[in-house]
Amino acid sequence: MSSDLAFRSVVELSRLIGDRQISPVDVVAALLDAIDRWNSTLRSYITVCAESALADARRAERDIAAGDYRGPLHGIPVSHKDISWTAGIRTTAHSKILLDYVPDADATHVARLQRAGMILLGKTNTTEFATGGMEIFGTTRNPWDLTSFTGASSGGSANALAAGLAVAATGSDTGGSIRIPSSFCGVVGVKPTFGRVSRHGLIALSYTMDHVGPMARTVADCALLLRQMAGYDPLDPSSSQVPIPDFAAGFDRGLAGTVLGVPEHHFYENLDPEVDVALRSALQRFEHLGARLEPVAVPHAGDMMPVGLILSYVESFSQHAEWLRARAAEYGTRSRRRFCAGAFYTAAEYQQAMQLRTLWIQELDDVFQRVDALVTPTVPFPAFAIAVQESGPPNTTWNTRHFNVSGHPALSLPCGFSAAGLPIGMQLTGKWFDEPTLFRIAHAYEQSTRWHKQRPSLQEEPYEPSESRLAAG
Amino acid sequence: MSSDLAFRSVVELSRLIGDRQISPVDVVAALLDAIDRWNSTLRSYITVCAESALADARRAERDIAAGDYRGPLHGIPVSHKDISWTAGIRTTAHSKILLDYVPDADATHVARLQRAGMILLGKTNTTEFATGGMEIFGTTRNPWDLTSFTGASSGGSANALAAGLAVAATGSDTGGSIRIPSSFCGVVGVKPTFGRVSRHGLIALSYTMDHVGPMARTVADCALLLRQMAGYDPLDPSSSQVPIPDFAAGFDRGLAGTVLGVPEHHFYENLDPEVDVALRSALQRFEHLGARLEPVAVPHAGDMMPVGLILSYVESFSQHAEWLRARAAEYGTRSRRRFCAGAFYTAAEYQQAMQLRTLWIQELDDVFQRVDALVTPTVPFPAFAIAVQESGPPNTTWNTRHFNVSGHPALSLPCGFSAAGLPIGMQLTGKWFDEPTLFRIAHAYEQSTRWHKQRPSLQEEPYEPSESRLAAG
Repeated sequence: MSSDLAFRSVVELSRLIGDRQISPVDVVAALLDAIDRWNSTLRSYITVCAESALADARRAERDIAAGDYRGPLHGIPVSHKDISWTAGIRTTAHSKILLDYVPDADATHVARLQRAGMILLGKTNTTEFATGGMEIFGTTRNPWDLTSFTGASSGGSANALAAGLAVAATGSDTGGSIRIPSSFCGVVGVKPTFGRVSRHGLIALSYTMDHVGPMARTVADCALLLRQMAGYDPLDPSSSQVPIPDFAAGFDRGLAGTVLGVPEHHFYENLDPEVDVALRSALQRFEHLGARLEPVAVPHAGDMMPVGLILSYVESFSQHAEWLRARAAEYGTRSRRRFCAGAFYTAAEYQQAMQLRTLWIQELDDVFQRVDALVTPTVPFPAFAIAVQESGPPNTTWNTRHFNVSGHPALSLPCGFSAAGLPIGMQLTGKWFDEPTLFRIAHAYEQSTRWHKQRPSLQEEPYEPSESRLAAG
Repeated sequence: MSSDLAFRSVVELSRLIGDRQISPVDVVAALLDAIDRWNSTLRSYITVCAESALADARRAERDIAAGDYRGPLHGIPVSHKDISWTAGIRTTAHSKILLDYVPDADATHVARLQRAGMILLGKTNTTEFATGGMEIFGTTRNPWDLTSFTGASSGGSANALAAGLAVAATGSDTGGSIRIPSSFCGVVGVKPTFGRVSRHGLIALSYTMDHVGPMARTVADCALLLRQMAGYDPLDPSSSQVPIPDFAAGFDRGLAGTVLGVPEHHFYENLDPEVDVALRSALQRFEHLGARLEPVAVPHAGDMMPVGLILSYVESFSQHAEWLRARAAEYGTRSRRRFCAGAFYTAAEYQQAMQLRTLWIQELDDVFQRVDALVTPTVPFPAFAIAVQESGPPNTTWNTRHFNVSGHPALSLPCGFSAAGLPIGMQLTGKWFDEPTLFRIAHAYEQSTRWHKQRPSLQEEPYEPSESRLAAG
C-alpha cells in the first residue's frame, strides 16, 4: 500500500482522503519512505521537511475527521522547487550565495497551495539560480536511467514525481525549465500563460520570461493544482486579473472539431528519429480521436532562439548585477558566465529583441485564429548522459523557449519511449489564457494511451554507481 | 459663410453635407482660403493638397448627390501630421533626410479615414522626426499669440484647428505630442490606448510609446474620427484585436456616479498659478455635474520621467541607428543629440526601465479599480515664447509622458485661459481600452462650458511680425 500510495494521482488521493479511506499521514509516510530510500541516489530534494510534513499531515487528518475539509487538495503533499520562498525553510536556489537563506514569507503560489490544505513535503533540486550547474547538492538523476540527466532546471520536481518521491510539485520555467525535465522524466508539466500565476517569492531569473507552474503525473492533476496557484496578486506587477476558469471543464468534450496546428518551420527540424516517430504517431492518434491536423507557417520561429537568449542574458544580468559585483567568486562558473554575458548588450540590441518578440507574438496569435493548439516535440531528443550535461550539453530549449518569449501557455506530456527506455515528451501550446483547451486536448490524448501508467524500474533494480562516476556533490 | 464653415465642428459639417445643405467643395474652399491667408504666418502646413482636395470634394459632392453617401465623415477634409505616409504625396517628417520622400502607400489610419470618405487637405507641420527642431519649414506659431509656441510635435495640426485652417486632423503622441499642442492651442486631442490605432505607416520614433490619435475642436468630433481610425491591423504587430466601441455611446448619460481621481503626487506639483486655478475650477465643475472627486496616491509617478526618457532615447536611437551612421550631417542638432543619447544605455538599464514601467502600469490599474478617470493639467504651464522653444524649452511632457509609458488612453481638452489669453488644457486619463468613459466625461465637461467656442482674434487682427523676430524658416 505504502509505495502504491506514492504513485497514486492527486485526483485519486484526493478522493481517498476526502472519503477518509486513507489519511494524509499514510501518504506523507509513503513518500518519506521513498525519499529515505532513493533521495541520495536521485538527488531530488535539497531539503526534506519530514517532521513538519508529518505534523501537518496529522493536523490535516484531524481537521478532515472533524469535518473541516478544505477541498480536493487538502492533505496532499506538495514539493516546491528550491527557488520558491518557503517561510522559515531555507531556499537555496542551489547557490552558495543563498545557501543559508531562510525567507520570512512564502511565495504566493506556495501560500495559495498551503491555504488549499496542501502539505509542504520538501524543496526540490534545481540548477544554480535555475540556470547554472549543480555543484553543491549534486546533479539530479533520471529514474529511467540513472546515468542520464533529468533536464533542467526543475529536474528535482520531475524526477521525484517519476520515481514516486512526490505526488505533486511546482516548478519554474524561463526557457523550458518545467517542460524539459517533464519530457525527460516522463511526467506532465505546465508553463501557464504569462501573468496567470504570480511570481512573487520566486527567486527571479528573467523578468519577462519567468513562469511558475504545476508538475504532476497526470494532466488532471496539473489542472487541479493550477486552479489553486492561479490568480491576480498585487505583489507581482505582471500578474493578470483575467478570471480563473475550471481548467478541467472540457475533459468530457473530447476532441471532435478540435484543430491542431503542426508547425512547418523549426519545431520538427533536426529531430532524433525516435522523437520523430513518437510525434508522428501521436499526431495520428489525435486524428483518430477526432481532431483535425493543419500545417501552419511560423516563419519567425527560427529567430526566437537568439531573441530569447538575449532577453534572458540581459534580464538575468540585471537581476544579478549587484551580487556579480560584490560576490562574483560565490557563483559557479556556468551561471557567472551566463549572467555576465548580459552586461555586454546595448539597450538598442535588447530593444530590437523586444521588437522581434512582438512580431512573434502576433504571428502566433494569427495562427491561433485558425487552430486550437500547436503540437510539437517538447525537446528534439530524449534525455542524455549526465557526463554530457556537465561537459557541454546540447540546446534543450530548442522548442520551448519560444513560448517564454511569447507568453503563450504550453505543457509537456509523455508520448512515448525511446528504445533505450527514456521518455519522449510532446508539447502543446495554446492561446493566451486558454489553458482549459490545452488541458482538454492533453487529457484526451493521455487517457487514450498508457504512457503515464509506466513506472521506472528503479524500485526493483536499485542502481548504485561508484562515486567516481558521479558529479561532485 | 466661408470662414464660418472653417470653424464648424465635424459633427455639424457632417449634418450639413449629409442633408446636402452645403457641398464638400464649400468646406474645402473655405479652408483653402484660410490657408492661403494664414499659412505663411502660422506655418501649419508643410504641404497643402489644394488641387486634389478640390477634386476629391467635387467627387464627394457628386457621389453624395447620387445617393452614394459613405457615412458621417464623407466629404469632410482632414489634415495629417507630416509623419504619416500619404500615397503619392511627400511625407517629410520635417527632415532633410525625407525631404523628397513620397510613400507608395497610405498609413493605415490615413487609408481608413479616406475609405470613410474624408478628403486629404494637407500635411501639417511637425518638429524634425517628431522630436527635433523646425529648421526647414519654420516654427509653428500659436494663433492665440503669434510670438508663442504651439507645443510639439503635432503643433501644425493643433494650430490649424485653432485658427480655422483645418476642421479635423490627426497627430502622433510619443511623450505628449498630441496632448501638449492641443492644450497650448485650445483644441481637443486624444492619445488612444496603446494598440487601439495602427501605427503602420507612421514614421516611427519610439516603438513602445508611439501612438496615433485624432485632433479636433470638440470631444464629439474626436470620438467620430477615432471610430474610423481604430481597429486591428495585421501590419502593426502591436495593434489590438479588442473590438471598436461607439466612442460617443455615453454622451447622454452625464456624470452622475462618475468617480474622478485627483492624483496626490507629481501631477499638481509646480503648477503655473493660472493653470492651478483653472484646474481647481474644473474640478469644482465636475462636482457640480454630479461626479465625485477622490484623491488617489500614485507614488511611482515621479519616476516615470526618467523611465520614459530612457525608453524614448533608446528606442529612437534603435530606429535611427543606420541613418545616424550614414547620414548624421543631415540631422538637425537637437534630434541628432537626442537620438545619439540612446546609444549609451546598456541593455540592463533599458530592462530596468521596462521593469519600472510594469510597476507603474499596475499602480494605475489599481487606481482605475476605484476611479473612472484621472484629472490632471495637461501641461503645468500655458504656451511659452517661440524664442524659449528655440533656445531651451521647459519640460512640456511633465504630465503626459506617463501615459505613453503606461499605454492608458488620455485626452486633452480646453479648461480655461490665462490672463494673457493663452489656452489651458486639462488631461483626462482612463482605463485601458475604455475611451468611451473618457469621451463621456470630457463631453459632459465641454458642453457645460464655452471654452471650445472661443476663437483666436487672428482673423480680425492679423499680426505681421518682422522677419528678424522670427525663427529661421
